[in-house]
Amino acid sequence: MSATLHGVNPRTGEPGPQIPESTADELDAVIAAATQAAGDPRLAEAGRRAAMLRAAAARLRARRAEIVELAGGETGLPAARLDGELERTAVQLEMLGDVVAAGDHLEVIIDPADAGAAPVPRPDVRRMLFPIGPVAVFGASNFPLAFSTAGGDTASALAAGCPVVVKGHPAHPRTGTLVAQLLTEAAAEAGLPEGTFGHVLESGFALAERLVRDDRIEAVAFTGSFRGGRAIAEHAANRARPIPVYAEMGSLNPLIVTEAALRARAAHIADGLAASVSTFGGQLCTKPGIALFPAGAEGDAFCELMGDRLGAAAPQVLLTKAIADGFAAGLAAVDAAPGVTRVGQRTGNGDGSEIFAAAAPTAYRADAAALSAAALRDEHFGPAIILVAYSDASELLEALGSLGGQLAISIHSEPADADWVRSILPACVAQAGRIVFDGFSTGVSVCWAMMHGGPYPASSDAAATSVGMTAIQRFLRPVAFQNAPDALLPAALRDDNPLGVRRRVDGVLD
Amino acid sequence: MSATLHGVNPRTGEPGPQIPESTADELDAVIAAATQAAGDPRLAEAGRRAAMLRAAAARLRARRAEIVELAGGETGLPAARLDGELERTAVQLEMLGDVVAAGDHLEVIIDPADAGAAPVPRPDVRRMLFPIGPVAVFGASNFPLAFSTAGGDTASALAAGCPVVVKGHPAHPRTGTLVAQLLTEAAAEAGLPEGTFGHVLESGFALAERLVRDDRIEAVAFTGSFRGGRAIAEHAANRARPIPVYAEMGSLNPLIVTEAALRARAAHIADGLAASVSTFGGQLCTKPGIALFPAGAEGDAFCELMGDRLGAAAPQVLLTKAIADGFAAGLAAVDAAPGVTRVGQRTGNGDGSEIFAAAAPTAYRADAAALSAAALRDEHFGPAIILVAYSDASELLEALGSLGGQLAISIHSEPADADWVRSILPACVAQAGRIVFDGFSTGVSVCWAMMHGGPYPASSDAAATSVGMTAIQRFLRPVAFQNAPDALLPAALRDDNPLGVRRRVDGVLD
Repeated sequence: MSATLHGVNPRTGEPGPQIPESTADELDAVIAAATQAAGDPRLAEAGRRAAMLRAAAARLRARRAEIVELAGGETGLPAARLDGELERTAVQLEMLGDVVAAGDHLEVIIDPADAGAAPVPRPDVRRMLFPIGPVAVFGASNFPLAFSTAGGDTASALAAGCPVVVKGHPAHPRTGTLVAQLLTEAAAEAGLPEGTFGHVLESGFALAERLVRDDRIEAVAFTGSFRGGRAIAEHAANRARPIPVYAEMGSLNPLIVTEAALRARAAHIADGLAASVSTFGGQLCTKPGIALFPAGAEGDAFCELMGDRLGAAAPQVLLTKAIADGFAAGLAAVDAAPGVTRVGQRTGNGDGSEIFAAAAPTAYRADAAALSAAALRDEHFGPAIILVAYSDASELLEALGSLGGQLAISIHSEPADADWVRSILPACVAQAGRIVFDGFSTGVSVCWAMMHGGPYPASSDAAATSVGMTAIQRFLRPVAFQNAPDALLPAALRDDNPLGVRRRVDGVLD
Repeated sequence: MSATLHGVNPRTGEPGPQIPESTADELDAVIAAATQAAGDPRLAEAGRRAAMLRAAAARLRARRAEIVELAGGETGLPAARLDGELERTAVQLEMLGDVVAAGDHLEVIIDPADAGAAPVPRPDVRRMLFPIGPVAVFGASNFPLAFSTAGGDTASALAAGCPVVVKGHPAHPRTGTLVAQLLTEAAAEAGLPEGTFGHVLESGFALAERLVRDDRIEAVAFTGSFRGGRAIAEHAANRARPIPVYAEMGSLNPLIVTEAALRARAAHIADGLAASVSTFGGQLCTKPGIALFPAGAEGDAFCELMGDRLGAAAPQVLLTKAIADGFAAGLAAVDAAPGVTRVGQRTGNGDGSEIFAAAAPTAYRADAAALSAAALRDEHFGPAIILVAYSDASELLEALGSLGGQLAISIHSEPADADWVRSILPACVAQAGRIVFDGFSTGVSVCWAMMHGGPYPASSDAAATSVGMTAIQRFLRPVAFQNAPDALLPAALRDDNPLGVRRRVDGVLD
């Protein structure tokens, strides 16, 4: 009798149907197929990979209603959000298909032989990027589509030419299984080998560890908690043959607001910040968990506004009971910390007691000294924010520094603050992957320039992004060909550039 | 009384003068200065950094005779080689200065706001690379200039804008100390802060571990042994805040030769290979340690040629007595392995017994099956090669696969072998960072396209190179600016592109 798992509707507590867990043998077969696919010349054809990514997008859209309903039942997320997330997932697959078709991601560099080079003659050296091999992907609970089975990690690894083995998230197993089926169909439609995409499911961590430790796996992409990411990174670092881990582990995403900004538009900022904190249960890795406001009358008024806004917000359905319990425990620790007070009174519709996995949006107020308590520097995954007063730039920077690496830092200021902002900007750059001006860190645009990652502990690799077109770089590595006959070169490196890719030749980008 | 260390002339055994070892307090002060420098706006000025790199090159050249003499006494390497290495080191510094001045290394990407973007409007997002902060550099014993104090790691980290702390190699302490002084002078000449470059010396590993584990250090670059690299990588991975380690740990650099190539030019290949194995004591991380030759008469004759060539080569001075002892112990293990025989008789001038740290060039012959002995798959750092017979492509690939990740693989073939080479090429690409055609892996050109690194255990990070212009990428990480007012953007991201750097705008490389 094999083990089973099932999702749970976090709004009602109703369990979903039982689904068989994968066995160790099944995992082994999936990895074996991925390894086989990694060496298959069909996977090396950019055209086939682009076709697969586009076919996957089309198949997701074709099953939109079914996927949105399944995911809604398993995650408690509203249909409109899931509908948008499905579209984002599809667009991301298509955009990466376009990148692969264009070929710029190969980063071709050609140094023709130069007998006159100093200090010694230079041979002909040509370099491009190649896929690293089978990639293990661990999806997140909070984006059952865009950061899960067919999410950015899967899309960018496939785009790079790497077979993918997804360890499906047990909180949305039916959604993941359906999406996995669509990816498998898309691979077949594009004529790609069977092992191009594989999917396993488990409720615990045994298969996950086995997957990370398997010598045939060349990299791991993960989106989730710090604890999960750190455990995976340690498994990977302690292999006989360590491999890179690209773990995006969330962060506090501090928001900084100046007195002038509050004077000009406190209500506007409070509206936006409250929405950024509470929407979708505040379960976004870019949710602002800390806001740094100027001590004084403007700051006091802002705290009141935030208390009003969040107190009036409806209780939220969280993704799982475990997340709701963890959130409650985290807030209990904040409540117990010295120098912290809850802001505002709950005035919204009810306390959420009719929801199985509920959380009420909450704001705290503290002064910078209170940040010495670890509970205030922990990420609280849910609709809560801690408002921290600063007296000047130096106290602000000290508070910021105590929070460690961040995915994003947001700064709300007025043009008159420009010099002040300039004075704190280098510290923000040193500490975060993205700086948002007069806006909110939630909402991570899928575009070329996006950076979704940051210094540890936000990410395990501060130089990697899991969103945007450069996410593909994580799954590629350079190989140089020295004095190769033209006939033996990969097409992108040949003299006549048959693929028409952009190249740096003799030091100059064409 | 503080501890001292000293070099030893490996040709004569004569000890060099005593030099004080650095203390933990001195290391702490050096790291503190580097941390200070990392936040200094002068170090953010590309022009100053380019000036420093060029000034360092000029200062190295100005002290050429003195440096070559010091390094010769400490390493036993010939003056002509050290003279060339000094020039290479200087050119490398200058080339990286040019890269920084041009600004392409910033990899600027700009996505202007797009209200019509699907599925949601896109904000203005602009991304560029920023320096990661203080970098620890561990130089190699075998390149006292080009891969040591002012070598590629130091040059590329400084170019990126990162302060550097060098842990000097104890085998060439006077050379390192003089070069460190020149770098310090160059930093001052360019008006860079004091902590831009720091240098510590120790004979053991206590300071090294302290440096890697120091929370203010953001990355480590290392060139040396597998054992050293692995130990550093483990220290770094087990920090509270893990950091990247770029360790280049050497490899076997297998050379593959076809029957047709032997028929056409066996003597030419043997000449080149024997030189590649024995020159500079074979102490190059790209020395071919394994050659795979076709079983049969042509292969037999090739083995004889190699035995003749290496048997006639003069005994070599190795860098240190410890390296000579390690080399001898490694060959003893090869001698003891089943199915391995020494090739050729020693006919050269003497046995090297007049040299303090000596090694005689040596060739072995074995069947592919003999590679099951670990001693044959270990790197023997010195003038030795193991010639391994293969019967067909499948046996060749199995043998190759058993050797693990490589810096380079060389293939000697004839045009008629093209299909056969094509059939083994994907496996070579999967296993190495560089594929050399009809040449030898020693000699790593400093150019844009160079890749000096490879899959584990050749490197700790298969995607990184320690030679060439893209070595700078190791010390940079992206930061995105979202909806930033133009006045608050770094110059490279401003609308008017005042630095004139190449940029990808709206998905298109300009």
